[in-house]
Amino acid sequence: MKNKVTVVGSGNWGSVAAKLIASNTVRLSSFDDEVRMWVFEEKLPSGEKLTDVINRTNENVKYLPGIKLGKNVVADPDVESAVKGANMLVFVSPHQFMEGICKKLVGKIGKDTEGISLVKGMEVKKEGPCMISTLISKTLGINCSVLMGANIANEIALEKFSEATVGYSKNKEAAEKWVQLFGTPYFIVSAVQDVEGVEMCGTLKNIVAIAAGLLHNIHNLIVVSSFTFYKMTQILVGFVDGMEMGNNTKAAIMRIGLKEMIKFSKMLFPSVKDSTFFESCGVADLITTCLGGRNRKVADAYAKNQGKRSFDQLEAELLNGQKLQGVLTAKEVYEVLSDRGWVEQFPLFSTVHAISIGRLPPSAIVELGDSRSANKQVGNSTL
Amino acid sequence: MKNKVTVVGSGNWGSVAAKLIASNTVRLSSFDDEVRMWVFEEKLPSGEKLTDVINRTNENVKYLPGIKLGKNVVADPDVESAVKGANMLVFVSPHQFMEGICKKLVGKIGKDTEGISLVKGMEVKKEGPCMISTLISKTLGINCSVLMGANIANEIALEKFSEATVGYSKNKEAAEKWVQLFGTPYFIVSAVQDVEGVEMCGTLKNIVAIAAGLLHNIHNLIVVSSFTFYKMTQILVGFVDGMEMGNNTKAAIMRIGLKEMIKFSKMLFPSVKDSTFFESCGVADLITTCLGGRNRKVADAYAKNQGKRSFDQLEAELLNGQKLQGVLTAKEVYEVLSDRGWVEQFPLFSTVHAISIGRLPPSAIVELGDSRSANKQVGNSTL
Repeated sequence: MKNKVTVVGSGNWGSVAAKLIASNTVRLSSFDDEVRMWVFEEKLPSGEKLTDVINRTNENVKYLPGIKLGKNVVADPDVESAVKGANMLVFVSPHQFMEGICKKLVGKIGKDTEGISLVKGMEVKKEGPCMISTLISKTLGINCSVLMGANIANEIALEKFSEATVGYSKNKEAAEKWVQLFGTPYFIVSAVQDVEGVEMCGTLKNIVAIAAGLLHNIHNLIVVSSFTFYKMTQILVGFVDGMEMGNNTKAAIMRIGLKEMIKFSKMLFPSVKDSTFFESCGVADLITTCLGGRNRKVADAYAKNQGKRSFDQLEAELLNGQKLQGVLTAKEVYEVLSDRGWVEQFPLFSTVHAISIGRLPPSAIVELGDSRSANKQVGNSTL
Repeated sequence: MKNKVTVVGSGNWGSVAAKLIASNTVRLSSFDDEVRMWVFEEKLPSGEKLTDVINRTNENVKYLPGIKLGKNVVADPDVESAVKGANMLVFVSPHQFMEGICKKLVGKIGKDTEGISLVKGMEVKKEGPCMISTLISKTLGINCSVLMGANIANEIALEKFSEATVGYSKNKEAAEKWVQLFGTPYFIVSAVQDVEGVEMCGTLKNIVAIAAGLLHNIHNLIVVSSFTFYKMTQILVGFVDGMEMGNNTKAAIMRIGLKEMIKFSKMLFPSVKDSTFFESCGVADLITTCLGGRNRKVADAYAKNQGKRSFDQLEAELLNGQKLQGVLTAKEVYEVLSDRGWVEQFPLFSTVHAISIGRLPPSAIVELGDSRSANKQVGNSTL
């Protein structure tokens, strides 16, 4: 029997995932050509339904305009009908909707179905944090892998060379099928047996991206307010040289963030491996998200407005309906930190949360160093 | 007896190192205030000698204009006289000059002298590669640590928040003294017991920076030559969104480079630790160098000229007398790879070398993926 794939979600990344998958199902004999894609129905300004337009034009005109998804992608506004008969489910909705979606699907899924989550984030409940793959796997009673990586969706849509990592827990054969289904010559997928490590990478990097985004404008403010004439001269020399100033600081913030990602992941899941952070889901995704992602962009605007406009307002204005994961994740992670008495050990994560709720000014992100300089240790680096 | 420090070198980074050190020697009672700095004498366009101008103005007008080094920095054009009486030597000259400098100093150094190398690169000899710290330590018979990190000198000169890593082999007390001597509230230094790992990071990242630099213009060429109308539309959408395109690819190249750095370091020195690559000398320095360093800049110009002007020419034009380490390091590393039959295992390092000598076109850097896609493995990521 051929494998049949449904993509549960159709935002920017969901649409790109459908395109990647559809290019492979027509090519590989072990897969049914048709890829169904569940679309949260919206009415477009033209009065048409989004699903109708996708099925007529093969294009998600709202979330991925200008890119053909493949004629074998079929949009369906009803999630239960979309998953019917599928034995491979790709979950790619904003994480705050995942619990509701899973509940709707209980009892509608075949028992040998394999799931994969492309969702960044986690659910925090009274009993502790719950990864999205665990939520899917527990609610639906299916095995669930994850796919994360340096994946700015618009770039993959343009078929630029990128990489991704599949994290799996036990079923290596399923992981091989996912690698087949997603991989293309321009999208290199490899798999590692560390589902929690891979998923934590995809979740936590958004917090670090907010920290990196806050930096840009803070530096400009510092330049204007306190530099001497000599320093101003030097800045001009820097610009003339084509050097971008502040890269040291940005790199330092990214590194401190990476260290907190590793530490937090391992404290929650002792099975998490250091080596996972050298995969695409780790260091590469962190870099690309801090350089060009939406968390960075909104944080940049937040710092520019000196905190006078909230993250919620800026998200609504700047993201065209897309959701900002970093602020929500920072809040959820902070709940775990304070619940377990770990706040002091994670200065970057805690500071991002405090800034995002307005308790600290954006400039607090460059003051991480002050507390750290008192703590220098030899042979036992603290961060 | 107070510790007495000499900085052997006075380029851009050497001058910044002297500034950092001089701010600490006046503050700490265990150090003699005066910091001597050996300057390779040059005649300035004004007709004055560089050392005279530095000693008159406290400024290295050629390599760090606009920044006061501290009145306790004394420039000396004679290397033997500069090191006289010093028990802490900071080596910070381009790596191709290090062997000559060390030979001059034989017999001129006290036996309890401690050295630290800020030099990126290595010497390749018939008997194999020799790290600069080993060259110093063997030629002069002294213990030698290294200091590497995310250190774009101009940014540290402006006192922007940055970090660095001291790598030491046995003498932990010496490492603690170096951390004291270099650390400031804006320059956070920590130490790890892995001198080879730290030094390899500082050496090899320059090769990766060349790879990253080549990318920028290649993307522009691809955009112009082969994108369809739909893709052009999408690119415009990308620009309007403020997204920088190509970050996925850049992150992928940086990650593949990091993996090759780790693999090469461990194959040469089995004692090298994975954890070192999470320090400032590893991932942070790699990021900052790929975003803003001189190797990136010259590679960018090389790709823009489609390889029609050599790296040597561009170095002379763009770097105002500074040396380009990446091309030389790529050559030296390639000699090790081909000598030991490791070329196939290091596609990025080998490709950068081939491009830098004109054997492959700049665009070869984005073709790494083609050979890799044939090699996908589950549970055993190859790169």
